[in-house]
Parts: sequence; C-alpha cells; structure tokens
Amino acid sequence: MPARHIVAIGGSDAGISAALRICELDPSTEVTVVVADAYPNFSICGIPYYVSGEVTHWTNLAHRTADDLAATGMRVLTDTRATRINVGEHTLDVLDPTGAPTELSYDALIVGTGAVSARPPITGLTGPDALGPKDGVHLLHSMGDTFAVMESLEQRQPATAVIIGAGYIGLEMAEGLTTRGIAVTQIEALPEVLPTVDPELGALVHDELERHGVQVLTNTTVSAVTRTANGALTVTAHRDGETLHQTVDFVLVVVGVKADVELAADAGAELGIKGAIAVDEAMRTTLSDVFAAGDCVHTHHRLLGVTWLPLGTTAHKQGRVAGENALGGDARFAGSLGTQVVKLFDLVAARTGLRDHEVLAADRGWTPATIAATPDDHKAYYPGATPIHIRITGDERTGRLLGAQLVGHRSAEVSKRVDTYAAALFHEMSVEGFSELDLSYTPPLGSPWDATQMATQTWARQLRAKGVQLTSEDHPTRV
Amino acid sequence: MPARHIVAIGGSDAGISAALRICELDPSTEVTVVVADAYPNFSICGIPYYVSGEVTHWTNLAHRTADDLAATGMRVLTDTRATRINVGEHTLDVLDPTGAPTELSYDALIVGTGAVSARPPITGLTGPDALGPKDGVHLLHSMGDTFAVMESLEQRQPATAVIIGAGYIGLEMAEGLTTRGIAVTQIEALPEVLPTVDPELGALVHDELERHGVQVLTNTTVSAVTRTANGALTVTAHRDGETLHQTVDFVLVVVGVKADVELAADAGAELGIKGAIAVDEAMRTTLSDVFAAGDCVHTHHRLLGVTWLPLGTTAHKQGRVAGENALGGDARFAGSLGTQVVKLFDLVAARTGLRDHEVLAADRGWTPATIAATPDDHKAYYPGATPIHIRITGDERTGRLLGAQLVGHRSAEVSKRVDTYAAALFHEMSVEGFSELDLSYTPPLGSPWDATQMATQTWARQLRAKGVQLTSEDHPTRV
Repeated sequence: MPARHIVAIGGSDAGISAALRICELDPSTEVTVVVADAYPNFSICGIPYYVSGEVTHWTNLAHRTADDLAATGMRVLTDTRATRINVGEHTLDVLDPTGAPTELSYDALIVGTGAVSARPPITGLTGPDALGPKDGVHLLHSMGDTFAVMESLEQRQPATAVIIGAGYIGLEMAEGLTTRGIAVTQIEALPEVLPTVDPELGALVHDELERHGVQVLTNTTVSAVTRTANGALTVTAHRDGETLHQTVDFVLVVVGVKADVELAADAGAELGIKGAIAVDEAMRTTLSDVFAAGDCVHTHHRLLGVTWLPLGTTAHKQGRVAGENALGGDARFAGSLGTQVVKLFDLVAARTGLRDHEVLAADRGWTPATIAATPDDHKAYYPGATPIHIRITGDERTGRLLGAQLVGHRSAEVSKRVDTYAAALFHEMSVEGFSELDLSYTPPLGSPWDATQMATQTWARQLRAKGVQLTSEDHPTRV
Repeated sequence: MPARHIVAIGGSDAGISAALRICELDPSTEVTVVVADAYPNFSICGIPYYVSGEVTHWTNLAHRTADDLAATGMRVLTDTRATRINVGEHTLDVLDPTGAPTELSYDALIVGTGAVSARPPITGLTGPDALGPKDGVHLLHSMGDTFAVMESLEQRQPATAVIIGAGYIGLEMAEGLTTRGIAVTQIEALPEVLPTVDPELGALVHDELERHGVQVLTNTTVSAVTRTANGALTVTAHRDGETLHQTVDFVLVVVGVKADVELAADAGAELGIKGAIAVDEAMRTTLSDVFAAGDCVHTHHRLLGVTWLPLGTTAHKQGRVAGENALGGDARFAGSLGTQVVKLFDLVAARTGLRDHEVLAADRGWTPATIAATPDDHKAYYPGATPIHIRITGDERTGRLLGAQLVGHRSAEVSKRVDTYAAALFHEMSVEGFSELDLSYTPPLGSPWDATQMATQTWARQLRAKGVQLTSEDHPTRV
C-alpha cells in the first residue's frame, strides 16, 4: 500500500504548520507543500523590521530555512502555482516553475492560500493605469512586495512618504520608515490610529508617533494619488470639508487584506463571513477531504462565534489542527480571542477579547462596562516604574470578564500581561475572580496584586460604586 | 446599634489587606489595625532595594502612607502590641505605645501576625551571648532589622560580607550588597543556590552571581560565627570534610522564617502544618469569630492540598478573603500555586506549580515528567532575542500540566510569562491544551507560538518520542 499523501497549498503559517504537524505525528505520511513564490515559511510580520534595517538580511525572516523544512520530511514545491482542485478525483492541478501544467494526487488537501492586500478605491490606485512600484506606490503583504519596496527605497532614496492606513502594518511601517530617516505622514480615515483599540488608547499611540516625528492625519480620507512631472507623488485627501495636498517621494497603501479564496471557491467550497472559506472547528471545508486554515478561512471566535479575524497566531493553530485532522485525527480549533499586540517606538499596545461595541455585536445578552485604570508595571519605589493604561471590559450583569486592552512602555511586559487576560478569557473567568490567580511578584517587576489584577479590581470597585450588584456568578467555580 | 468593630492584628500584607477589603465593602464597619511597630503596610520585599541604595528613602517602601491608610477609614494603632486574645469575651489585650495595658473589644478578629526569622543552630548565633547587630551580625525580616542593617553598614563600612542562605532574600541581598561595593561570599548548605527551582536552573543563577563578583559556596554548612579581637567576624564552614574559615566585616543570616503563632496558640487555636495556624478556605481559625491570614497560617495549595508556603501575594489574597468573611461574607481563598519570581542582576527566575519531587509528595497518582526547552523570548531576527530556559512538568499519564520553571534575561518578560502558566494551572489545563491559548505575538516581543507554548510542545514531543501514550485527557474540555 502506498504511503498516504497530503498536500498543503500555501507556504505561509497555515500550510507549513499543517505540514509540520503531520511530519511530527506520522512520519510515514508523505507531505507536499505547494508554494506560489520562492519564499516558504517566511515571517510576514517581520517585514517592517527588514524595511527599517533592524533585520539585516531578508533571509533572516525565514522561520525555517529550506534545509530545516527538508529535514522535517516535507517536500516543498516553490514557484508552483495551484490552479484547480479536482475534488472528485482528489487531484490538484498546478503550474510548475517552468509554467508547465502538472497534477498532484492527494488523500487529503489543506488550503492555506492566505490573504491578499486590499486595494482601496482611490484614483490612481485602481484600473489599468494604476500607479505601482515603478512609481514608488506600494502595497505590502508578500516577500515580493517587500523586495519591490526595498528597490524603490534604494532607487528613489525618498526623503518623504505617505502611509495610507494606520492599522498594525501601517503603524509598524511608520516606525520603520522613520528609522530609515524618512519623514512620514500617516493618514487614517477613522477618528484615531490603531482602530482595533479604544480611541483613548489609540490616542497614546498617536502621541508616540508624533513624539517620533510622524505627522498623523486622522479623520482624513485619501481620494487620489497622482504622479507629478518630476516623478514625485501628490496625495489628495479630505478632512472636515478641507482638501489637503501633500507631495512626497513614496506612498505605501496598507488598508487591510481580504481572504484569497478563488481556488477553493472555484472548486465549489462554501464561503462564509466576509467571503472567507467556511470551515468547521475541525478546519474541514464543505468539500470532501479538503481542509482549510489561516487567513483564507472564517474564524471561530470564543466570544463572537464565527467572524473573520486573520492573525498569524490563529493561522498556526488552525494549520496544526488541519494537519492533525488530515491524518484522520479529531482535533478542534479551540477558537480565537483576537489577542494582538504591536510595538511602536517605545510603546506597546495589546488587546484580547471584546470591546463594548463588539460585546453588543456578539448579541449574547451581555451588558458591556469598560473601566480604565493606570496601575504601575512594578512597585513605584523601584526605579523605572511606568504606568500601564488598561481598559477592562466586563458584563455588568454576570461580572464576566469580556476583554482587556493595554498600552504601556515596552519595558512594562505588556505583551505577556495581555496573555494572562487571554488565559482568563479562555476559561470564562469573572472580573472579580481574576484576583484569585496566583501571579508572580517581585518589586522590580510587579506588585503583590499584579497590575492586571489592580485593573480588574478597579472595574469591580467602580461598578459597585455605580450601584451595580455583581451577582454571585462573579465568583468562578472552585475546582 | 453601635457599628460593628473588626480588629486586625498585624500591619503587614494580611492585616492591611483585610482592613482595606472591609473598608471597601462596608464603610460603616469600624476597623482597627493593631501594629506592633511603627511601620504599617511596608513592603518587606522591597528591603533589599533600600539596602542596595536603589530605593533612596525608607519611607518609599510604604505601600501606603499613614494618611493614605487613614483616608480609607481604618484606624491604625502603631507601636501597639497584642498580648492576649480573649475568645469568649471577644476582646483583645494590648499594650499601648506607653506600655500601658488596654483592651479592645471586637465582633470579629483577624490574626495577621506573620512570620519571624529563623535563627539557625550555629555557634555564635544562639544563646545569651549570641552575636547581633552591634557586632555586625544580622537577621533581616522587619523594618527594625533593616534600620539595624543600615546602621551597621554606615558605621562599619564593611568591605566584605558573608551571607548565610541563598534563597530569595539571601540572593537579593547578595545583589544589594554587591551594588553597594561590598565583596560578598554567599554560603548555601544545599547543592545549589535558589533551591526552590531545579538545580539546572539554580546553576544559571549561580553563574550570574559569580559573573557579578559574588563568591558562591554551595554544599557548605556554617558551624560558627566568632568575633575576632579587632571586631571582624570569622565564619567557620564545612564542605566535603574540609573546614573553611573566612573573616569578614559583616554577616547576614537569612535561612528562612517560621510562622509567628504564639498569640493565636495561647488562645487555643489549632495549629496545622509546620506549626502554622490551621484555617479553612474561608480563613477561619478554630476559634469563634477569629480569622487568620498570611505567613502565620498554613496554606491551601491547589495541587498539594494543605502545606505552608508563606508569600506576600498569598497574604494579600488571604487577607482580602478574611476581611470579606469577617463582615459575614462567604469568600474562599482559591488556593496557592506557589508562583514566585526573583530578579538577580540581569537574570529573572520564576516558577509556578510543582517540581518532580513535589508531584510525588502530592500523592495524587501523578507520574511526573519534566522536560527542558530553551526557546527565544522573541523572533531571533529582531535584535535582542535571548533564550528562556524553561522546564515543564506534567503528568505522563493524563498529560496534565503540573508546573513550570523559567530563567531568562530580565528583558525576556519571564515574570509575566510564568503568569500564563499559573493561569493554565489554575484551570487544570493539559500540557498539550496549553497550545490552544490565544497568546499575543509581535516579532520584537514574541513568536507565533509563544515561548511558553514552544516549551509545552517540546514536552509533548519528547514524551511521544519516549513512547508515552498521551491519553485523550490531554485535550481540555471545550467550552
């Protein structure tokens, strides 16, 4: 009997995680990973640090080298484009690096096609005459995009740049380009930067950007990018009825991504929220023996139900589940909590769980209450203490913890403090019950009640002061 | 009807936490805190940083000032010594600051008498002629001890010191005295320093001490401290049958503490493990309307059952529970996991849960397996990545997570990474299930699988490689 053959499409987090899990659990299964470009298992999240110069060579962005991958037992086909899934035949049509069509048969298939950059409806960015890398206008999502950006930066030596979008990647690129000595203007259509956190916290990031010389324009919508006679780029934008023109040397457009679902959709896979591939918690699509994982699928969220929330951490987890199940296992993706963190200059911003409007959108009968607290990261008497700005969201009725957002100095261990909240949310703890966690303390690094617990205690105190009766459900089940 | 009156004995973590909780939940109740010295609500854990000079004034060690405490509504009686609990009469005999006896009546009493330094059976340290502060020989637990140490340091201007004991306080004091320019010899009877972690990790701390000039003698037992003719101190110790003599200017004896239970024991309270006051999870002693909390009581541990494990974090939690219950509430101390952390020079060492021998001592049918991993704290391509030395302990049979120990650079967010394990232990997660936690990631601060998850995945992989069948229990209950 020939060895079982599992094919994964996509060389990023989901596809490689699936392949790694298969190699780990059953070395006798053959695994082939089909990768459209030459860069399997690269850290897309690391691109801003390569652009900034902090990562000295692009090859360092690889989570694993080609040799590392080969050593796991998987076969990686680079520069190979999947063109059609033949579900009945259990075959995948691909174009090999020469462009020649060939066919791979599979016992199980894992689709990890990821996402592609969204291209906003801005004059000059769409249509057949859209400006592009040769004009110094860039999207940024793949290694190919990255090389184009680096080529532009070297050839154009821009002194000035506009970044359209102030989400994670836009903000990290503002830091990266600033680090390279480029004067950056960041334009965001929404009222505050980093719109994934409450504006009170986004404002702190806004201040940090300005403190480092970034010009920040919020509530500002870009309508056009045009090329001037001498090759510069004029960005036309609108704020409060006013029209702004800014002429710069370089434009980066980072307004989000959309799921890349064409291959699966063409094969008849059902699509779910936001057009992402519908999967169950076992990462099965509606197609027989076809799994999918990562940015191309909709996301099971422990508090929101099904949503779409593409994150690398999620892609790793889903890929691992898909790999195990492609082998016949019965793993389940436990669900996302949307835990995220970003470092911007000397500030770290993190979140997990839900914000007020998301609690309402979840439609589970919760009444959100969000309270702010600013405990120090460690005892104030020990040098270097800094306040952490924390916002705790809980349900007024049951006292259940629903979300936490934190912004603090990069020395304040914010990125791992959010993890404690994430673990508490995973286990459906109450805000009051959070104080029962036995967290570590030493004066240089914490407090007898950790900052995370001081914040949840503030929530309970303020709700009590408002006259809210926290029911006994705010005491978690004893084990 | 007169207001209810609750009296707390002890001005450290347990007593003050109890009083704060009462003031928060019911401002109409009168609360009196009886404090034997003049230093209520001081951070004992901060003493080494005052000795080192990093905390510039001793008053900064107060968690709250006298005014802060008064503002909460509690009455604090300093320099007031409790001498007898009259359980039947619901009164407490005290000596006021002038030494005059007086009596306080209470509706409920909370005993938070803490612990006192252990005095080891070493010639020169016991008996009527024991050396003491005037000779440059010190214990260190209270603010009074601290002032004596500081006076000795100023008057003697020691160039050299011996520290007997290499637990948390001994190690922190080695750093503190080194920071002051004193050449320190640290003597530990056990085979490795920081015996609360596995010796493989203690050895890293040992190296860090030596890197900073501390002479470390392990497996070494001190038999005598004697005063030389010129006022120096000769420490006599033994290692491998060899006798060592070291003459220094200053000796610090920090070999642990014992529960201070005299008051409660004299009143007839039942004593528990290691002679600490026996309490239930509501922090009730066996005496009517008498609660107790903190270092003076035995400790409910979520994995070990009842033990004695005095920690400031635990005292805060227990005090809070005792306060709520003294008001008639029904709070329960959820139990300790023994989570601890210490910073030594540039290294941080932390632990939570159990080590192998403790798993066996727990006698719950677990078969401990401990595996080492050294994942980087963040993506290696981003500058400043350092390995974290992690040891994961789990049950071979059920796959349940039982403990974690970490040592890493102080930039590696070790103290808050141990908290994620502590939260997982609180909820009885499996080692494999730990990977389901949605933890944060950005390349400068983490990895798509956090270092904590890479370590648990290593545990599972190594156990599988050993042929251990991880049962389905290693998948946690889905919610």
